Amino acid sequence: MAEVGEFGGIGVAGGTIATYLHQRGEVQTAAGYGRRFMAEPITPKEVLASKDMKAQMELLIMKIQADFCNALEGEENFGKKFTVDRWERSEGGGGITCVLQDGDVFEKAGVNISVVHGNLPKGAIQQMRSRGKQLADGELPFFAAGVSAVIHPRNPMVPTIHFNYRYFEVTDSQGTKQWWFGGGTDLTPYYLNEEDAIHFHRTLKEACDEHDSSYYPKFKAWCDKYFFIPHRNECRGVGGIFFDDLDEPDQESAFNFVSSCAHSVIPSYLPLVKKHKNEAYGDRERQWQLLRRGRYVEFNLIYDRGTKFGLYTPGARYESILMSLPLTAKWEYMNLPPADSKESEITHVLKNPKEWLQMPQKQ
Amino acid sequence: MAEVGEFGGIGVAGGTIATYLHQRGEVQTAAGYGRRFMAEPITPKEVLASKDMKAQMELLIMKIQADFCNALEGEENFGKKFTVDRWERSEGGGGITCVLQDGDVFEKAGVNISVVHGNLPKGAIQQMRSRGKQLADGELPFFAAGVSAVIHPRNPMVPTIHFNYRYFEVTDSQGTKQWWFGGGTDLTPYYLNEEDAIHFHRTLKEACDEHDSSYYPKFKAWCDKYFFIPHRNECRGVGGIFFDDLDEPDQESAFNFVSSCAHSVIPSYLPLVKKHKNEAYGDRERQWQLLRRGRYVEFNLIYDRGTKFGLYTPGARYESILMSLPLTAKWEYMNLPPADSKESEITHVLKNPKEWLQMPQKQ
Repeated sequence: MAEVGEFGGIGVAGGTIATYLHQRGEVQTAAGYGRRFMAEPITPKEVLASKDMKAQMELLIMKIQADFCNALEGEENFGKKFTVDRWERSEGGGGITCVLQDGDVFEKAGVNISVVHGNLPKGAIQQMRSRGKQLADGELPFFAAGVSAVIHPRNPMVPTIHFNYRYFEVTDSQGTKQWWFGGGTDLTPYYLNEEDAIHFHRTLKEACDEHDSSYYPKFKAWCDKYFFIPHRNECRGVGGIFFDDLDEPDQESAFNFVSSCAHSVIPSYLPLVKKHKNEAYGDRERQWQLLRRGRYVEFNLIYDRGTKFGLYTPGARYESILMSLPLTAKWEYMNLPPADSKESEITHVLKNPKEWLQMPQKQ
Repeated sequence: MAEVGEFGGIGVAGGTIATYLHQRGEVQTAAGYGRRFMAEPITPKEVLASKDMKAQMELLIMKIQADFCNALEGEENFGKKFTVDRWERSEGGGGITCVLQDGDVFEKAGVNISVVHGNLPKGAIQQMRSRGKQLADGELPFFAAGVSAVIHPRNPMVPTIHFNYRYFEVTDSQGTKQWWFGGGTDLTPYYLNEEDAIHFHRTLKEACDEHDSSYYPKFKAWCDKYFFIPHRNECRGVGGIFFDDLDEPDQESAFNFVSSCAHSVIPSYLPLVKKHKNEAYGDRERQWQLLRRGRYVEFNLIYDRGTKFGLYTPGARYESILMSLPLTAKWEYMNLPPADSKESEITHVLKNPKEWLQMPQKQ
């Protein structure tokens, strides 16, 4: 998933493995927080009380994680719950990985937060410079906090959703601090439902428009460009929004924008789950879903910056990075849906991204 | 799969897509060749008659492909056959992709040959230089011919095998020609069977020893190093042999070595198929096989040089490159086999590669 590796990954020491294995399957109760949060925050309460941007962001992602997990659990018919793994990073910080696997509505749902700090690894510096960041030489202490999620539902009529919102701080040896936000939300349906795509994009646009009317068109185009599988010449899904290096107009306004985006995930997605989760489907639809999940794996493992970066970082918590992969995926040689089938309909849209909010409305 | 992208991939023009779609599912009969070859060779008969190394290599890989496809078809109980796609490359050359999918013994078996020529793409030049090749500036005409295969059997007691043997020529503007061979064969079992691993390695060692007694130990170690998944700190399988840039002691001897290796694939593997294909297994073994296939996908999509290189080449024939992926793969969050289980036994070996031919023999 986009950029999650930057959180799950950066320099997590090998020693952490032992810590999280020990916690496997044990729900870490968040004493004093109830289900407002999935587990105790990573940063001590006293530090969080400072209310600086680091604290604000950590409290935001903790809330977004819990809200989303609660909302998803509410759709399960037989009480399936998220397992919660709270993990620590020997160099500083940690994360909370929540996974619901083999539910009756969600085949695999992963919602991860991480709050990490330390010195930027070389790979991260190169990646940031390559996209235009001016970074001084020498050690670069950083702080990163983010939430990211990928939800793979069981019913092929319910789309997969991914979102990721993150905050970064880098300080150079002169003490000069740079900060920026990044993130996005995008939808990957298995069958085309224009109403769904329009609802999804409209919800994101409303969240953007509250802050800057130029954001939605710009970040919608960025999303189409980013979630693209070059070797297949198709997009991963029907898009959404994607942005990086956002440091305007000021920190508080940028945070408020990110907060609006993160809060728009549930209203953008839950209605689609409710609408389709009990729809009838057969093996044809299931097989197509599995093939499309193969494409999702291709994007995440070959092209996604965050996944690649995370996995190349020695000692990364790969279980948190790879929770984005579907429970099951298929690859058939030369599977080409017949022309005029509903499978070729979505394929056509993936090869020709649409402006969902500029389409002629059906009467 | 190792390096197949270098053949399936190099600059295959977008226009080729139309050609191979047209041929989908149609078996291209090789008039005059019978089942000695799977289809007509890529190079015209007159040119093949020259018997230079390019012709020798093309005839070798054609034979290896047909022998292997015939041998695998012979194991299927209900007459399942390979489909044969012969494809051409507008810039020169082409390939023959043979796939047997959904057989009762083989879930997905892909055997590909390609014979391509043109100018080396920049990415290929960089990759070759990075491993120490001295290549002149300017246009570099090349010729490449190779066979590669990945066989994913249905029964979890039958290992997956991969092999790839290839010949490269590069000519610089002074007319100086460099040539080399590369390749290897490696085995990925789902459950540990030491007898199988020993038989497999012994067969490869015998093929190597005919030519140079230093080859097996050197190429065995290279294989363990190459087929390694860093983020999981484990090998893809129980190894085999792997080598590249082989241009010694002379062209004919190197070719004879490669020919011995390629001819050792069937004796190294077919006995394992015959021995295990009818063994009983249950859902536990099937589920473990699918999880391990997820690791195979991770290696091929994230680390394999050939796959990455092929997919990054615009217009690559991705269907031939990705035929290495299993029909089905799974990813479960935090799946850890219990200690002392047969699943943890193979995991232990993957984390600690063995010297199969130096083990104390059972009495």
